[in-house]
Amino acid sequence: MAAADPNDSVQAIRWAGDELVLLDQRLLPGRVEFLSITTLGAAAAAIRDMVVRGAPAIGITAAYGAVLGARSLCSQPDWPARLRAALTELDAARPTAINLRWATDRVRVLLDGPEPTPVALEALAVSIHEDDVRANRRMGELGADVIGKVGGILTHCNAGALATGGYGTALGVIRTAWARGAVGQVFADETRPWLQGARLTAFELAADGIPVRLVAEGAAPWLMACGHVGAVVVGADRVAANGDAANKIGTYSLALAARHHGLTFMVVAPASTIDMAVESGEDIPIEERPGEELLELGGRRLAPDGVGAWNPVFDVTPASLIDVLVTERGVVHHPDPASMRALMTGR
Amino acid sequence: MAAADPNDSVQAIRWAGDELVLLDQRLLPGRVEFLSITTLGAAAAAIRDMVVRGAPAIGITAAYGAVLGARSLCSQPDWPARLRAALTELDAARPTAINLRWATDRVRVLLDGPEPTPVALEALAVSIHEDDVRANRRMGELGADVIGKVGGILTHCNAGALATGGYGTALGVIRTAWARGAVGQVFADETRPWLQGARLTAFELAADGIPVRLVAEGAAPWLMACGHVGAVVVGADRVAANGDAANKIGTYSLALAARHHGLTFMVVAPASTIDMAVESGEDIPIEERPGEELLELGGRRLAPDGVGAWNPVFDVTPASLIDVLVTERGVVHHPDPASMRALMTGR
Repeated sequence: MAAADPNDSVQAIRWAGDELVLLDQRLLPGRVEFLSITTLGAAAAAIRDMVVRGAPAIGITAAYGAVLGARSLCSQPDWPARLRAALTELDAARPTAINLRWATDRVRVLLDGPEPTPVALEALAVSIHEDDVRANRRMGELGADVIGKVGGILTHCNAGALATGGYGTALGVIRTAWARGAVGQVFADETRPWLQGARLTAFELAADGIPVRLVAEGAAPWLMACGHVGAVVVGADRVAANGDAANKIGTYSLALAARHHGLTFMVVAPASTIDMAVESGEDIPIEERPGEELLELGGRRLAPDGVGAWNPVFDVTPASLIDVLVTERGVVHHPDPASMRALMTGR
Repeated sequence: MAAADPNDSVQAIRWAGDELVLLDQRLLPGRVEFLSITTLGAAAAAIRDMVVRGAPAIGITAAYGAVLGARSLCSQPDWPARLRAALTELDAARPTAINLRWATDRVRVLLDGPEPTPVALEALAVSIHEDDVRANRRMGELGADVIGKVGGILTHCNAGALATGGYGTALGVIRTAWARGAVGQVFADETRPWLQGARLTAFELAADGIPVRLVAEGAAPWLMACGHVGAVVVGADRVAANGDAANKIGTYSLALAARHHGLTFMVVAPASTIDMAVESGEDIPIEERPGEELLELGGRRLAPDGVGAWNPVFDVTPASLIDVLVTERGVVHHPDPASMRALMTGR
């Protein structure tokens, strides 16, 4: 899995055979520390507490979590049923990204099959992980083809190696475009309140030597008005059957501004992020997190006591504002129910 | 000047006869400390270093700074000429807000008059200060009339008592609407990077018992999509002759989103903020501040070393996105060159 690619030096998830090793993303960029995860419960907690985040990454973590659960349960004859029950703890860890449920559903299918074994579950988790990296590489090529040569690209939050099995979705496209010499400057929204742009995207792009400058979210439309970017490239946490895309709060704002300025707005997400069971964005559950994430930083209070905050973690960008959806199965221009169905069913 | 109004308890600028007392806004909300300003140079430094900020407030500070300058120079026969030269230090303190230059221009007119005296300069400064509060009260009434009854209002940065001689421009409208029982909830953008919303707007609204919740800038368009606000009310640092308005970075983003959602977008600014010498927003100088404001917070580094930032402090909202401009001279709907000229000349 380790990449020799100089444009892909950061890895957040490593399976060590007997443990799952997660880069603790809460501590970046100040400290690079790894957590050893040895139980299903610890995997669920790591997702819930945002040790690991990003839709594909939490799906992969859940799959490995199931392996750890199987190993602790498999001395009991009814272990598949017990593991099935334990999967709900993983499912409940975070509500918006569908990849979590997608991964545990694949575990459920295996458990319902003729010969569920911990070894088979491990092979499944490793293949989910490897497929994700492969999908990201493919999306990188497809997305970079669409963007062509562009002066600057703006991205939001972190849809990179840290959010996936490796290489990244939105940042996979940016990495590929950079390797082709097709982009001169990356701008990253700092992404309040969790600062994924400042802490994570800046970290992994700087590690790969890709030039990145931070902007405040509020400055992004002005960045466009000043002509500094030609495209906006973001990831997604769940895409509905009509092409509406839930992604980090702030994405919808960029989509509105990109449309106003006639810039390409691209969403990059693997098929595992597409939820055909959800008709539109209105049916995607949007996680709200504690206002303290906005009111405090590193234990320091920013706002006066007694003041509250509204802190939804995701928003929904309607399909009508998405110029291109890039998946490993192909590119969809102006997604709608028909084109999404064609993408997912081949019909 | 002190207000008995329970909805107006915060004051940032106080003239004590022999010194100017400024609330140090860099320390809010954690510490409420006042700085004693006794020289023109110290007044310029307080503006430059953002002890005091907000277009009307820095105009008032400059006027008092000229009084302090006059007193230190007036033993010399050519003191008016010397003071005139010293005014350039005030003018250079910050580039975007026109109120600074507007105030020093009024000082210049007095210096060029038949009998310039320190006493006359003091009377001028006090009248600039008192007129500003009176203008804010008037704009509060006019703006609240336009908004009518609304569930929620979103504001950006701090255009409040702390940004003016008292009561505030945008927050003056909000205070008046609140006193009328016409608004249920105020939402304040936290306003990165300087956090004027989290630190200042939340501070002064909470002090007056007006319910305020913070949102990240990126969340503001989603707040609109979710139906939580009926109007966006902001201040301005300079309004051009065609109605384009420079204001805190992030304002343009709100204007785009408000238009998309069919919400009233209101700019509230006194006539001293209107610069008829500048044809359009393109000619307004936009201050860029050090990237460190975005890369660090309270001495703590947020982003990895070696990463840069793009940190313009203001953006320009085109007149075409402004539904209402509220000044103490009256309200302009859909400002354009003709209506702006009519407002400023009465013709």
